[in-house]
Amino acid sequence: MPSDSPREILLKAEDLQRFCAQVFSQLGLPDEDADLVADSLVESDLRGVHSHGVVLMPTYARRLQGGGINPRPDIRVVRETVATALIDGDDGQGQVVAKRAMEIAIAKARETGSGTVGVLCSSHFGAGSRWPMMALAHDMIGLAVTSSGASVAPWGGKTPLLGTNPWAVAIPAGQAWPIVLDMATSVMAGGKLVWAVKCEECIPLGWAVDTEGHPTTDPERGLAGRLLSAGGYKGYGLAVAVEMLASALTGASLGARMMQALADSAQPLNVGHFFVTIDVGAFMPPDQFKARVDDFVREMKQAELEPGVTEMLLPGELEFRMAQEQRRSGIPLPMTVLLELEEIGEILNLSVPWKSEREDLVTK
Amino acid sequence: MPSDSPREILLKAEDLQRFCAQVFSQLGLPDEDADLVADSLVESDLRGVHSHGVVLMPTYARRLQGGGINPRPDIRVVRETVATALIDGDDGQGQVVAKRAMEIAIAKARETGSGTVGVLCSSHFGAGSRWPMMALAHDMIGLAVTSSGASVAPWGGKTPLLGTNPWAVAIPAGQAWPIVLDMATSVMAGGKLVWAVKCEECIPLGWAVDTEGHPTTDPERGLAGRLLSAGGYKGYGLAVAVEMLASALTGASLGARMMQALADSAQPLNVGHFFVTIDVGAFMPPDQFKARVDDFVREMKQAELEPGVTEMLLPGELEFRMAQEQRRSGIPLPMTVLLELEEIGEILNLSVPWKSEREDLVTK
Repeated sequence: MPSDSPREILLKAEDLQRFCAQVFSQLGLPDEDADLVADSLVESDLRGVHSHGVVLMPTYARRLQGGGINPRPDIRVVRETVATALIDGDDGQGQVVAKRAMEIAIAKARETGSGTVGVLCSSHFGAGSRWPMMALAHDMIGLAVTSSGASVAPWGGKTPLLGTNPWAVAIPAGQAWPIVLDMATSVMAGGKLVWAVKCEECIPLGWAVDTEGHPTTDPERGLAGRLLSAGGYKGYGLAVAVEMLASALTGASLGARMMQALADSAQPLNVGHFFVTIDVGAFMPPDQFKARVDDFVREMKQAELEPGVTEMLLPGELEFRMAQEQRRSGIPLPMTVLLELEEIGEILNLSVPWKSEREDLVTK
Repeated sequence: MPSDSPREILLKAEDLQRFCAQVFSQLGLPDEDADLVADSLVESDLRGVHSHGVVLMPTYARRLQGGGINPRPDIRVVRETVATALIDGDDGQGQVVAKRAMEIAIAKARETGSGTVGVLCSSHFGAGSRWPMMALAHDMIGLAVTSSGASVAPWGGKTPLLGTNPWAVAIPAGQAWPIVLDMATSVMAGGKLVWAVKCEECIPLGWAVDTEGHPTTDPERGLAGRLLSAGGYKGYGLAVAVEMLASALTGASLGARMMQALADSAQPLNVGHFFVTIDVGAFMPPDQFKARVDDFVREMKQAELEPGVTEMLLPGELEFRMAQEQRRSGIPLPMTVLLELEEIGEILNLSVPWKSEREDLVTK
C-alpha cells in the first residue's frame, strides 16, 4: 500500500531470485552456483531472516569483483577418513563450498552412520540453517557451525576477538515442522544490526556497545563497537567452542586474524566451517524417531502460556510459516536495500524487475 | 579456622573420596565403579563445581537403595555401525554407563575419525565435563549432552517440560589448559540452587521463578517453580536440541516424562546421553592443532579488560586451577552437606573420617 513516503516494496520471490542469480552469473559464477547463492539469500528473506538475505548482496559482489572470492573454485578433499573429511574451499563463495561439504557429510553418514566435515578457505555461507536442513530429506540430523569476523569480545574483555560464531541444527520430524535452530552465539547476529541501519531503525539496548563500551541503540555505533554474548559467559563459551571446531581444527583463520582481510576485498577471508550429519537410522527406525519428535512438539505446545504469549513455537517454526506466507504475499524490502541492488544491476547492465514500480512509488 | 558458629569444614580430597567409594561399594556397586562414581563427585567439589559434588550423594544413595538405579548393570550395545553405537545402560549409575559409552566413542574415532554414541536407560552422570575430557588424552575433541528432569519451561510458557539439558565440550591444548566448556542451557544448573539451599544462601534474581512465575531469590522456591533459560529463547533452542539428541534419538525418556519417575526412587529414570568424539589427527597433526589452540588462548588473554576484571579466562580454566589449589588446601564443605553424608555413613555402618573434627567444632 503506497503511503506518502513509501519505504518498502513487496517483491515476488521469483523476481528477486532471477535478478540475484543474474548478478552472480555476471560476476563469474557458473549458473548452478549463481542460482544456489541467489536462493540462499532470497530464501532467507522469505523466512524473515533479513540479516542473511539480499542485504548481503553488495558485500558478496564487492568481494567477487575484488578477487577476495573465487567465482570458480576447485573445491578439494585434502584429508579424509571413512567418516570424516577436510575440505579446501579454494576461496569459493561460502554457499558453494558448504553445499559440497554437506553432500560429502551426508554420503559419509549414509556409509558409516555419521559424517564430520571441516572446511577451510571458504567465505560467508549465508544463513547457517540451510546446510543442516540438507540432511533432513535423508532422514538425518544435521549440524553446522562457522567462523565469522571478530565482533564479540571474550567474556570480561573489551577487544572484539571472536565472531558471532553461529550454531545451526536441524532435526527431522513427521507431521510437525522440522526443528531448526539457527543462532548466533552473540545476543544478535551482526547482520541484524546491518538490517536495522537499512531500515533506519534503532536496536534494543543489550545487543551491542559502542567503541567506548557504552550501551547503544544506534546500530551503526554498535557495529563500530562490539556485539554482546548471548547469556553472558555462556555465549562466550559457545563461541570459543565454534572457533575451535570451525577454525582451529580446519586451518581456517583463527580469532581476530580475519579482520585485516575484511578491510580489503581482494583478500580471501579463509572462513572455516564444520558440519556433522547423523543418520537417524543408525539409532532407531526413522519413522519411530519422527513420531517421537512429533510427540515432543505436541507436548511443548500444551505448555501453559505466559501472559501476552499467544502460541508456543518450536525453533524454526516461525521461519517455515513466514516463508509459506511470503511466497504468496511477496517479500517486503526497504528502499535502501533495493537501491543498492539496482546500483549493482546498472553496473552489470541488468534489467531490474521492480524498478518502474519503485520509481512510480517515489514520484507519487 | 573455627568461628563461633562454624559452617564449613576443610576436607582432604582423599578422605572424602575413600568415604564416598565405601558408601557406593556398600550400596552394591563393584569396587571399580564405586571408585569412579566417588571420583566424579569429589573431582567436581575439587573443581569448585559443588552443584555436582558430594551434595548429590543422598539422591544417588536413595535411588540405589530404592532400586531405581541398578548397581550392577549389564551395559550393552544394542545397535551399531562402524562410527556409531546405541547403548542400553540397563538403569546403571550414569557415571558407569557414560564411561563405557565414551570408551566406545573413543575406539570408534580411532577407527573412523569420529565416534557418535547415544545412550538410553541411564541415570544422572554427574558433571558433564568429565566425559568429553576422557577424549583429551587420545588427542581427540569430546562432546557430551544429557537429558535431565524437567525444570525449565519452553520459551513463552510456564510449564516445566524441559531439563537443564547441559552441553559439555573438551578441546585438547598444548601448553595452555584444555578448553572445557560445561554449561546448563538454563541460566544456572538446578544443582546450584540445591547447593544454595545447603549453604543457606540466596540466589540472584534471574535464575528462577517461583510456582506463581514471580522472580525469586529463595532457592527452595526456585526449585519448586522453574529455572529460566540462558539467553532467553537461545537457551530454549539449545535445550530442545539436546532433548532431540539425548532423548528422542536414543529412546530415553522425552520431555516431562521423567518427572513421575523422579518422585519414586524405585523407578528407573531412563536418562539419555549423547557423546561425540573427533580424532584431531583426522584433520591435522595433533601437535599443530594444539599449537593453534595455544595461540588462540594467548590472543584471548591479550584482550583489553573491562573495569573490575583482573584476568581473561578461557572456559574451564577456573576449574582446573581451583582443583589444583584445593587438592592442596582441602575442600570446604558446609555442615548441612557433611551431616547428610554422616547420616548415610551411620546407616551403612561406615567410619566417617571428619566426624570428630566436625563434633569438635560444633561443641567449641
